[in-house]
Amino acid sequence: MIGKQVVIIGGGFGGLTVARSLCHAEVTLIDRTNHHVFQPLLYQVATAALSAGDIAWPLRTLFRSQPNVRVVMDDVMAIDRTARVVQLRDSVPISFDALIVAPGSRHAYFGHDEWESFAPGLKTMTDAVQLREKMLLAFEEAERRRTSTGVQSQLTFVIVGGGPTGVELAGALAELGRKAMGPDFPHLRLEDLSIILVEAGPRLLPGFDADLSKKAAAALTRMGVMIKLRNPVSAVQADGVKIGQEWISSTNVIWAAGNRASSLLNTLSAPQDSFGRIKVGQDLTIPGDPWIFVIGDAAHCVGHDGKPLPGVAPVAMQQGRYVADLIDRDIAPDQRPLFVYADRGMLATIGRAQAVAQFGLVHVSGLFAWLIWCVVHIFFLIGFRNRFRVMSEWIWYYLTFKPGARLIFQRPSTVRRIPSTEHRHE
Amino acid sequence: MIGKQVVIIGGGFGGLTVARSLCHAEVTLIDRTNHHVFQPLLYQVATAALSAGDIAWPLRTLFRSQPNVRVVMDDVMAIDRTARVVQLRDSVPISFDALIVAPGSRHAYFGHDEWESFAPGLKTMTDAVQLREKMLLAFEEAERRRTSTGVQSQLTFVIVGGGPTGVELAGALAELGRKAMGPDFPHLRLEDLSIILVEAGPRLLPGFDADLSKKAAAALTRMGVMIKLRNPVSAVQADGVKIGQEWISSTNVIWAAGNRASSLLNTLSAPQDSFGRIKVGQDLTIPGDPWIFVIGDAAHCVGHDGKPLPGVAPVAMQQGRYVADLIDRDIAPDQRPLFVYADRGMLATIGRAQAVAQFGLVHVSGLFAWLIWCVVHIFFLIGFRNRFRVMSEWIWYYLTFKPGARLIFQRPSTVRRIPSTEHRHE
Repeated sequence: MIGKQVVIIGGGFGGLTVARSLCHAEVTLIDRTNHHVFQPLLYQVATAALSAGDIAWPLRTLFRSQPNVRVVMDDVMAIDRTARVVQLRDSVPISFDALIVAPGSRHAYFGHDEWESFAPGLKTMTDAVQLREKMLLAFEEAERRRTSTGVQSQLTFVIVGGGPTGVELAGALAELGRKAMGPDFPHLRLEDLSIILVEAGPRLLPGFDADLSKKAAAALTRMGVMIKLRNPVSAVQADGVKIGQEWISSTNVIWAAGNRASSLLNTLSAPQDSFGRIKVGQDLTIPGDPWIFVIGDAAHCVGHDGKPLPGVAPVAMQQGRYVADLIDRDIAPDQRPLFVYADRGMLATIGRAQAVAQFGLVHVSGLFAWLIWCVVHIFFLIGFRNRFRVMSEWIWYYLTFKPGARLIFQRPSTVRRIPSTEHRHE
Repeated sequence: MIGKQVVIIGGGFGGLTVARSLCHAEVTLIDRTNHHVFQPLLYQVATAALSAGDIAWPLRTLFRSQPNVRVVMDDVMAIDRTARVVQLRDSVPISFDALIVAPGSRHAYFGHDEWESFAPGLKTMTDAVQLREKMLLAFEEAERRRTSTGVQSQLTFVIVGGGPTGVELAGALAELGRKAMGPDFPHLRLEDLSIILVEAGPRLLPGFDADLSKKAAAALTRMGVMIKLRNPVSAVQADGVKIGQEWISSTNVIWAAGNRASSLLNTLSAPQDSFGRIKVGQDLTIPGDPWIFVIGDAAHCVGHDGKPLPGVAPVAMQQGRYVADLIDRDIAPDQRPLFVYADRGMLATIGRAQAVAQFGLVHVSGLFAWLIWCVVHIFFLIGFRNRFRVMSEWIWYYLTFKPGARLIFQRPSTVRRIPSTEHRHE
C-alpha cells in the first residue's frame, strides 16, 4: 500500500510492532501519552525497583529513523467507519485507508466500576508512580508514629487477582517490605506488614499447569504472602475490601483481576465479546471491513484450541507483524493467510531467584526459570540504553536490596499547595 | 557529646554532612521529603537529561550503616529555643541539646511573592518534574497544530537570573530544543523556539571574573540563547513577563534570581540579614546560644573578604564538617576555632563540552573546563550507583542527543480525572 494512509491507535506492543514493521505506507501512530511503556515490568516501578525512565521510551525517538511514521499525542474519541476517519480530542480528524485498533485494555470490575477508584489497576506509569508514593508514605507514617497502631490498614496490601501480575506484585512487595524497607525503619515491626493475594479461583496462575501453581504458591508463602483462594471479592471501599464474608481493612487494594477492552471499541459497531473485545476474523479484521484490524488485548482472536488468545505481549507483537505484512504487501481479503499464534511459552516471576516457566510440556521453576525470565525481559526491552540501565539496576538491587527509585515527591497535604511553594522547608 | 540529642533540620548538603560526620551523638535528621537531592544537577532533570532517581537518594538508605542517626520525614513548624524543642507538623516535638538549622533557601521575588506562582524556581524535584512536563507538552502541542501559531508563548522560555543556575538552564534548554527535540518534531520550526536569559546586572555569572562572563555569554549566543542584560523584571503574569519596558509573552518563566532563606528562621528570633539569613558568629552559632548552629544557605557567614559566603554546596559541606567536629568533641564556646571557608574555585557548565571554571587566578573554559565539571560533579554524587548511572546517562546523551527522561505522565486535561481512569485509551 505505497502512499496509503495507515492509522494506528495505541503505542503498546501491538501498535508499536505494526508501525515498526511498515516500510511503505504513510503511518500515523496515535497514543494518549508520549511514550511506550514496557508493561510487564510496570510492577517493578510500583515497587520502587526501577525508575519510570527505565521501562518507558519516547515514541518520537523510537521512530526518528523511520520518516514514514508520524507520532500524534492525543486521545481518540471515536472511529467513523463510514467517513473513514478517526476523531481526536485536540487535533483535526485523521482519515485512513487502513486502520489498526490497538488501544489495549483496562481492568474489569465485574459490573462494579465504583470499585475502581478504591482499587486501581496497574496499567499506566501514573498508576505505578502513585502506588509507589502511597506505599512509601505508609511506611514513613508508621515509622513516625513509632507504632503500627492506626496504620495497620496502611501496611496491609491486598492484591486482587492471582494471575501473573498479581503474583509478581505480591512477590515484589514482600521483598521490598521485608528485605529493603525493614532495615530503614527501625520502629516498624515487620509483622505489621501484611501482603494478601486474593484469587477467586481454586489456584494461582490459572494459565499455568497445576504443579507450577503449587510451586508459585509455596514460594510466595515462604516470602510471607498470605494467599486466599476460592475467595471472590464482594465489596471494595476506601478503607478496605470484603472477601467472601471476611472484611479486611486496607488502604492499599490493588486490582490485578480480569481485563476489559477499551470502550473506544464500542464506537466500531462490530460484534464484541463479554469483555468488550472485538470478535475478529482469522485475518484480524472486523466483519465486512477488510482494512480495519483489531489486535492485542482489544481483539477476541480464537486460537487453534478454540479459546481466545491471552492478552499478552507476544500475541500482540505477532499480530502486529502479521497485519503489517498484509498491509505492506497489499494482500486482498480473499488471498490472506490465516493468523496463527506461535506460543513460545509462559513465564511468571515471583521474586529474587524465583520464577516459574512453562514451555509446552517442559516446566521449569526456581533460579533457572528466573534467569530465563531476566534474559527474556532484558532482551525485549526496547533500546540498548534501557536494557543496559535495567540490567545494572537489577544487579544492584539483587546484590544490595537497596531499591533506588524510592522517591516521594509530594506529601498528601502538600499536593494541594501551589507547586511553587513545594520547596519551602517550613 | 556522647548520648546527647542532636537535631538536624534539613537533608541538603549541609545537614547531610553534619549527620554523616557525627559519630557519638544521638542524631535526628528531619526533612520534609524522604530523599536528598543533588541540587546542582536539578536543571538536568528539568531538561529531561536525567531521571529523578539519578540525582536523588533516600535518606534512610544513606544512614542504614549509621545506627546513631534517626530519619524523620516531617515539616518543621517552629523552633522553641526556651523549651529546646523543635515543633513538627505531624510528629511529637523533638527536644535537642544541640540543633543544626539547615533548611536551605527558596528564591527571592524582591517583594513580589505573587510572581512565584507564575515563575517558579528550580529548588525541588517537584519543580523539576513539573517544568519538564510543561516543556514537553508545549512541544507536543506545537507539533499537533503543525504550526507555532498560538504556541509561540509556549515555545518561549524566559529564565530570570544570570547566575550559574540560569546559565546552565538556558544552555540545557537550548541543547534540548535544537538538538534533541528538533529531529522528533518535523512540523516544529526551531526558529519558533526562543530561550531568553534575563539578568538585571551588567553581565552573566557575576560571581566569576569578567572574562569568563564574556566567554559564557558568547557560548550561549552561539547556541541561540538571547541574553538581555541590565534588564530588571518589572512584572510577571501567567502569560508573560515584563522586562524593563518590554513585554515578552511566555508561559514558561523560570526564576533563578536571588535567594531568600526559609521563613522557619524567623522563629529563631535571632538577627537576620535582608535575605532572611541568620547572622551567625565565627563558630556558626546564633548570638548567645552556643549549641544552635545555622549553616548553608540559611546562614549569613562572613568570609575573610568581609562578604557573606555564597550559597553553594561546598560552603554548606565545609560548615557541616566544622559543626560536627565541635559537637563530637564537645568544644566549649570560648575554645572553638573559627570557621574558615576554603574556596576551591567555581564551576559553571553551559552545554555539551562548554563550561567555565575559576580557580583563584586560574581561569579555564571550553572543553577542558567541562571535563573538570563532569569529574567534579560525578565525584560528589552520592553513592556509587548514582554516579555510575549518571555517567552512563551522560555518555549516552552526549553521544546520541536522545534524552531518556522525556516522559509525560499526565496531560493537563487528565490531571483532574481520578487516577484509576488514567489508563483508559479514550
